[in-house]
Amino acid sequence: MPNHFADRFTAAVKEKGTPICVGLDPRLSQIPEFIRKKHGNPADALIEFNKGIIDAVCDLVPVVKPQVAFYEIFGPEGMRAFAETLRYASSKGLITIADVKRNDIGSTAEGYADAYLTKGAPFEADSVTINAYLGWDGVKPFSDKARVYGKGFFALVKTSNPSSADLQDLTMKDGRSVYEIMGHFVDSWGADDLGKCGYSFVGAVCGATYPKQAAKLREIMPNTIFLVPGYGAQGGGASEVKPCFKNGEGAIVNNSRGITFAYEKSDKFTDKEYAEAARDAVLAMKKDLENIL
Amino acid sequence: MPNHFADRFTAAVKEKGTPICVGLDPRLSQIPEFIRKKHGNPADALIEFNKGIIDAVCDLVPVVKPQVAFYEIFGPEGMRAFAETLRYASSKGLITIADVKRNDIGSTAEGYADAYLTKGAPFEADSVTINAYLGWDGVKPFSDKARVYGKGFFALVKTSNPSSADLQDLTMKDGRSVYEIMGHFVDSWGADDLGKCGYSFVGAVCGATYPKQAAKLREIMPNTIFLVPGYGAQGGGASEVKPCFKNGEGAIVNNSRGITFAYEKSDKFTDKEYAEAARDAVLAMKKDLENIL
Repeated sequence: MPNHFADRFTAAVKEKGTPICVGLDPRLSQIPEFIRKKHGNPADALIEFNKGIIDAVCDLVPVVKPQVAFYEIFGPEGMRAFAETLRYASSKGLITIADVKRNDIGSTAEGYADAYLTKGAPFEADSVTINAYLGWDGVKPFSDKARVYGKGFFALVKTSNPSSADLQDLTMKDGRSVYEIMGHFVDSWGADDLGKCGYSFVGAVCGATYPKQAAKLREIMPNTIFLVPGYGAQGGGASEVKPCFKNGEGAIVNNSRGITFAYEKSDKFTDKEYAEAARDAVLAMKKDLENIL
Repeated sequence: MPNHFADRFTAAVKEKGTPICVGLDPRLSQIPEFIRKKHGNPADALIEFNKGIIDAVCDLVPVVKPQVAFYEIFGPEGMRAFAETLRYASSKGLITIADVKRNDIGSTAEGYADAYLTKGAPFEADSVTINAYLGWDGVKPFSDKARVYGKGFFALVKTSNPSSADLQDLTMKDGRSVYEIMGHFVDSWGADDLGKCGYSFVGAVCGATYPKQAAKLREIMPNTIFLVPGYGAQGGGASEVKPCFKNGEGAIVNNSRGITFAYEKSDKFTDKEYAEAARDAVLAMKKDLENIL
């Protein structure tokens, strides 16, 4: 039996001493020109850029999260860069989250689960993000594979964007909001198979931009690992992410642009030093998070 | 200016005289052995199989819908088969729906919209399916591209699977259900830019398996084209899909396995005649739908 996802996850966070996830969203226009010029194929520029970032941060952070939209733009070749990024990050000992937000009816979701959560899958990752609007039978294939292969998944609960209120904040007849209902689902889905660390292989996406809702969700989901986007470029800071943690544990805070493209806003680093700039940004973020952990 | 998506869509349905969408979900294990044996690369088997189906049905049906999970299983190569399937279907005059159910925050959703709904995009399609759990700002990039390029998209409202009730059927404080709320959103998103046909470029996914809910949604969304999965293998029949139509118009009924793998359940056709079997199944479905239109 492979190790439980939550145990691998919490051990990695402990080992690195910080709950930082680096988001690998390589917008081509923001990749330094010296890399772009080198490659005829944009996919190869994405790979070189990502490898540079991974090499620079892999001893500091436990988790990376490539967001697939930034790869799908480049078609099948972009998906090759996505697969290669996941493989390379994994070879450097990093826990990977394939941020794909996949969702469908059961028989189709099986295809996605096969593509991302099985051993030797083309896009094999330690975990994926999913959207559970379709309910349990669309989630079950991810759960089945996760149990067999020691993988995990993170379901959208309260997302970091301004419009997340449109549906997620609406109040149900029983007084709960849609995001609270989703939180209860997530809590129940993995409750029968917690890791030794006490956490589930079913995680929740909960935006750093909504600390009040996060505090409520932390109570609803005591055994759930929170994946927290929205730190940095989207406006969340250390105090905003604090409610996502339980005694300083059980959450991972993502930062994408703020780390990978730190060189653009830096006086200290040139574009050739984009990886050093990323490392510097990770160290600053680590310090920032230490204030609240 | 390109023609409005809804106008192209309704003209295609009228021309072919039936509102059938053929779902191209090429499960490799169900593709005839003579095709699988021919290709070292499964992606090439998918392409040959799909082209056979498309050739056999393109004079009969207006729309095809490849579901991307069945391609993602095969990695970047599978995505090549997905792109090639979309291209080939388009070259045969078919309206394409890339069934990808993508969703994310605005800045990321832009990437998906670029990948599927722009002219010359690697996975260019006439329309995509999306999941709007994240609210309007995650939908806007699809809407923006659709308006510029004469494309469309279908948002999940009431899905065809058994567990769709988990969240979608829950009752809000104001007495409406989650799927009704989503229906109101969909209705509003395209209301300012209807085609000459009176329909919007923002469609709704509404399962054939829930006729009562469909009837309610038809009232909520009078100008919305319904994409109706769940006919055939999932249990929906002609009488179940009837409430999705408005005066016999405004909906397209999808059938995947029931058409593409009809040869498996046929005494009339061998596996070499899978395409003829598919054509036969389309004609039978056309006749079935004529009873209610």
